[in-house]
Amino acid sequence: MLTVLDQGYVRLVNHMGSDLTVVNAARVSYAKESKELSERDIKLIRFLAREGHTSPFRHVMLQFEIYAPLMVARQWWKYVIGSSHMEGTGDSLDAWNESSRRYITEEPAFYVPGAGQWRGKPENSKQGSGDALEWEIGQKHTDELMRYIEEGLRKYEAALADGVCAEQARLFLPSYGMYVRWYWTSSLQAVCHFLDQRLEHDAQREIQEYAKAILELSEPLFPHSIGELRRPNGEA
Amino acid sequence: MLTVLDQGYVRLVNHMGSDLTVVNAARVSYAKESKELSERDIKLIRFLAREGHTSPFRHVMLQFEIYAPLMVARQWWKYVIGSSHMEGTGDSLDAWNESSRRYITEEPAFYVPGAGQWRGKPENSKQGSGDALEWEIGQKHTDELMRYIEEGLRKYEAALADGVCAEQARLFLPSYGMYVRWYWTSSLQAVCHFLDQRLEHDAQREIQEYAKAILELSEPLFPHSIGELRRPNGEA
Amino acid sequence: MLTVLDQGYVRLVNHMGSDLTVVNAARVSYAKESKELSERDIKLIRFLAREGHTSPFRHVMLQFEIYAPLMVARQWWKYVIGSSHMEGTGDSLDAWNESSRRYITEEPAFYVPGAGQWRGKPENSKQGSGDALEWEIGQKHTDELMRYIEEGLRKYEAALADGVCAEQARLFLPSYGMYVRWYWTSSLQAVCHFLDQRLEHDAQREIQEYAKAILELSEPLFPHSIGELRRPNGEA
Amino acid sequence: MLTVLDQGYVRLVNHMGSDLTVVNAARVSYAKESKELSERDIKLIRFLAREGHTSPFRHVMLQFEIYAPLMVARQWWKYVIGSSHMEGTGDSLDAWNESSRRYITEEPAFYVPGAGQWRGKPENSKQGSGDALEWEIGQKHTDELMRYIEEGLRKYEAALADGVCAEQARLFLPSYGMYVRWYWTSSLQAVCHFLDQRLEHDAQREIQEYAKAILELSEPLFPHSIGELRRPNGEA
Repeated sequence: MLTVLDQGYVRLVNHMGSDLTVVNAARVSYAKESKELSERDIKLIRFLAREGHTSPFRHVMLQFEIYAPLMVARQWWKYVIGSSHMEGTGDSLDAWNESSRRYITEEPAFYVPGAGQWRGKPENSKQGSGDALEWEIGQKHTDELMRYIEEGLRKYEAALADGVCAEQARLFLPSYGMYVRWYWTSSLQAVCHFLDQRLEHDAQREIQEYAKAILELSEPLFPHSIGELRRPNGEA
Repeated sequence: MLTVLDQGYVRLVNHMGSDLTVVNAARVSYAKESKELSERDIKLIRFLAREGHTSPFRHVMLQFEIYAPLMVARQWWKYVIGSSHMEGTGDSLDAWNESSRRYITEEPAFYVPGAGQWRGKPENSKQGSGDALEWEIGQKHTDELMRYIEEGLRKYEAALADGVCAEQARLFLPSYGMYVRWYWTSSLQAVCHFLDQRLEHDAQREIQEYAKAILELSEPLFPHSIGELRRPNGEA
Repeated sequence: MLTVLDQGYVRLVNHMGSDLTVVNAARVSYAKESKELSERDIKLIRFLAREGHTSPFRHVMLQFEIYAPLMVARQWWKYVIGSSHMEGTGDSLDAWNESSRRYITEEPAFYVPGAGQWRGKPENSKQGSGDALEWEIGQKHTDELMRYIEEGLRKYEAALADGVCAEQARLFLPSYGMYVRWYWTSSLQAVCHFLDQRLEHDAQREIQEYAKAILELSEPLFPHSIGELRRPNGEA
Repeated sequence: MLTVLDQGYVRLVNHMGSDLTVVNAARVSYAKESKELSERDIKLIRFLAREGHTSPFRHVMLQFEIYAPLMVARQWWKYVIGSSHMEGTGDSLDAWNESSRRYITEEPAFYVPGAGQWRGKPENSKQGSGDALEWEIGQKHTDELMRYIEEGLRKYEAALADGVCAEQARLFLPSYGMYVRWYWTSSLQAVCHFLDQRLEHDAQREIQEYAKAILELSEPLFPHSIGELRRPNGEA
């Protein structure tokens, strides 16, 4: 399990297959199966990645448990779509509903950037963020945010105490920073697509941290496939 | 355009096809095309709906513009998945990012239940909500929520003024109730699936209101298909 | 309707939206709607296509009826997947099953290349085909194929006459060339993805002919979007 | 590996997870993880299956290698769609193209029903098949089919020898019965959906045989989940 941000984490729950799976899926019609990864197999992986023949990479699966602020979860959902394994948005998934606070489960937890972690506007871009702001300014907003969250929690509890249903009481929560927890089951191809987009410099810094953790947990399992899929086109 | 909640709406942007499209898609391999809906065509629609042969209903499309609180949008996303037309979560959709407040665009707007619109806990269920609470209790929480939102907005503006990037400043917003706007392009089958689940009594009341608006706008366009798809099994 | 191969065709059944739809979908969070396509709108389309922000192109739909040999249909199915609108493979679609000859419907029809349409092996590639073969060789195989199909049809009819079920009798049909008919409802993005891959020189020549017909029918409807989506990267 | 039909088979290549995975995915937001399957866990699986909360079942994966006639493969593809893991139809999958005979790889093999395996028309249905036909009639069509396949293969080889490209030469093959081989990587939910539809009495008998093999290989791995997902509604 790798810790991310102040309270978040990424945990590899399970995985299926290896670099060999990619090779064997690609050669299935030849009725040939490699038992050990050869130089020829590695070349095939390189060829498949370079030519965009990505289907064999969809026969390898990874499964993570993720605990992240809701604003990170929202950006993540598009990859859930890509992998077609809903982590459980919506009514057919109790699990997610609960962390969405339509139910009352565990205590809400919130992401609060530390004094040195508030970032300025990006220089030449509409998107993303720039360098860290001064410590004093950061400290001020850390304090403000903590106070604001505490006030929201008090009002949320007061509403529940007055009999307000949970699905409305949650309107008092500053939810962008609220931690939610979910399972992400995804093919290797979808994981690499996520990495390509979320390790980019203009991705939100918070999700970049999660992407680094995903990479660190995945690369040792599929070193050749991830290496080739993430190699910039045209690079030797 | 139908108004929903205090500031939201649903607007039918476009649609493609009619009840006839369903019939012609189902009979495509016969090279027969109906030009006008006959009794026999209506029977075919009934048969297809009853037997769960839903593919022909995926050749009819509807397109809506929706303006709803984020908590409603989150429940809606699973149908976006179902219809495979992302409204633009994630980086390949500027539009959504912007309303997610990684950019600064229009003024944030928030859903605030009126004094008579706060609901109690459900009687015999973990999910959903019950009857309206007393007016005085509701009034109190309406006032509290308005004050809390105003305070969040002040802090949000102060953070931006101090140079904090938008993607972090938004941590100050009580975002469950924040309005976001998106396009939903969906097949008739996916629309009916959405209606089946979101008109249910234990769906969140707020999304039920949106589902009613979707039904009101869709039914006149595809009266037979929607009538049959939404007919409970076994009903005559 | 455009004729393709000896008996096939592509027909535009319907479409939804225009270049304006792409622009309005991309700007939905600004609550701004263009009523007429401006220079600024065209620039936005170019920007979206160049940066790979493809979601707005998924709000425009096209619907075709296609009549093509089964071997072409099989290559087409992956785009059906891409667009998530099954034309009806499988049991939830009578229509397709019927043309798959589990039922007996219309007379089977087969694609037979003319004497000048048989192609040789490709020069430097494992995939695709090369130049036309000599007329005499072509004539010989055209005759052979016609005889072989006729013989298969006779055996197929004899099996049916002996009481063999249709789903087994079809084993006598040389089905790669057998014409099937289906509806393809697809977003503009999926159509362009199909065109990118199926207009390529190493795509099977027969499906290239269908791709040309799709392009000819689509381009006048969405000239800017198709122009930009199909512009090679880096081209001015 | 289980043998199916005259030359086909189903092989379990890999799987990920167990009944416990379903339980842990469903409870992810509670931060509780079962290490051993309890009575309470089994009740949760029953509840999830009964209420149609199917997402947790999508976090369990199965992977099969299948060798089956093309007509069976075509019916299978819709579940490939359901599981969003293309086995490789289309150009991004060499493997499939090769067994589609655009390339020349291994010798073509064909499904030929034995004398006692030809079925009659169904009694009261447009779809499916009925009882076995008499042995003599069956023997006749087995012989006819073998001769027809041999003739097609001779013509196919002759075309190749005359320099005809493989993608056209294959027009001589009676391909409905031609064996193809592919990987199917699918969630447990999609597998159960496949079983529900393909074990039905009106599914083609040949694919029913494959469905039985899939069930036999899967059930020991996920006994509770498969038991509950496949329990008819309302059954105690």
